[in-house]
Amino acid sequence: MLKLQVSGKAILSTVRCRRQARVSGKAILSTVRCRRQMSTSSSFVFGPYKIDPREVFYATPLSYAMVNLRPLLPGHVLVCPRRLVPRFTDLTADETSDLWLTAQKVGSRIETFHKASSLTLAIQDGPQAGQSVPHVHIHVLPRKGGDFEKNDEIYDAIDEKEKELKQKLDLDKDRVDRSIEEMADEASQYRSLFDC
Amino acid sequence: MLKLQVSGKAILSTVRCRRQARVSGKAILSTVRCRRQMSTSSSFVFGPYKIDPREVFYATPLSYAMVNLRPLLPGHVLVCPRRLVPRFTDLTADETSDLWLTAQKVGSRIETFHKASSLTLAIQDGPQAGQSVPHVHIHVLPRKGGDFEKNDEIYDAIDEKEKELKQKLDLDKDRVDRSIEEMADEASQYRSLFDC
Repeated sequence: MLKLQVSGKAILSTVRCRRQARVSGKAILSTVRCRRQMSTSSSFVFGPYKIDPREVFYATPLSYAMVNLRPLLPGHVLVCPRRLVPRFTDLTADETSDLWLTAQKVGSRIETFHKASSLTLAIQDGPQAGQSVPHVHIHVLPRKGGDFEKNDEIYDAIDEKEKELKQKLDLDKDRVDRSIEEMADEASQYRSLFDC
Repeated sequence: MLKLQVSGKAILSTVRCRRQARVSGKAILSTVRCRRQMSTSSSFVFGPYKIDPREVFYATPLSYAMVNLRPLLPGHVLVCPRRLVPRFTDLTADETSDLWLTAQKVGSRIETFHKASSLTLAIQDGPQAGQSVPHVHIHVLPRKGGDFEKNDEIYDAIDEKEKELKQKLDLDKDRVDRSIEEMADEASQYRSLFDC
């Protein structure tokens, strides 16, 4: 079985971002150095698997958001509770609230970042709903006009991705996945949306 | 344009339910009469439309759950914020939390009621995601093995239902919809899941 690379170490991500402030009606571009530390307790599980923290771009004490191994569309990300629970109803009230406030924040920023105009948000909650990894996860997908020929094809594709995700995690197959470097780079871009 | 029937009056729903209490290890079935009053302030809007309160089976000060005009599967219901907001990101933190805690509670009870084993939970957030009525709404669908030949067909069907819903609300067409009596009856059944 393939084991994803895990880093137990703290990740210091130093992000340069441009903050635009308007003073006396005049735009001032100030470059701000934002330093964010994902603590040493930042280990992330997804079902029975450990997730490389470099794939995670936003986290709260109860939830985290990560990039996808094979995004269906640019900005297709997953938002999960940190605690391993298979079903949505297993979450506490605090976890439920935090999970969706995280998805709301993530969705809004990812949509803007990708110049999209809508979002698809979906949970396949349980095996009969197409859930492949038994850990609650929200699919967040920025949508644009004409991104799929028929709008509902997005769901066929989500379903296919769930199957692929499981195959990827379960089997050490020779598959053409994105590299961790590529995923870490995308996550780093998204991380800057929340840091500054 | 067709206007849905609206009742401005308070609805007193008297629900008989059986409550099972265990006293000294012995099951006691007691029939309890539960009286619940949806206050006169219980007016529900869905986009530009008013919803007959008889279709609503659960409500909080911020959210409500209603039965569907044309459910895709038994127990296919919608959970909405009471405030008319088109996009998920328009909701306040309190509304977001309440909406999903409502969906969690509703989903759990409807799934059990329909002897299902999973749930599909989805928001089509914005027109490019297939949203037809510009008011946030969560589709909650109890799922069973084999309910759709291919699991992802559920989403094609949700999409079709969104279109039908809009047509129904927009156009005074001669369509074979469920009667208000049938919908009120279903809502009454569901209401009892929360009253007792």
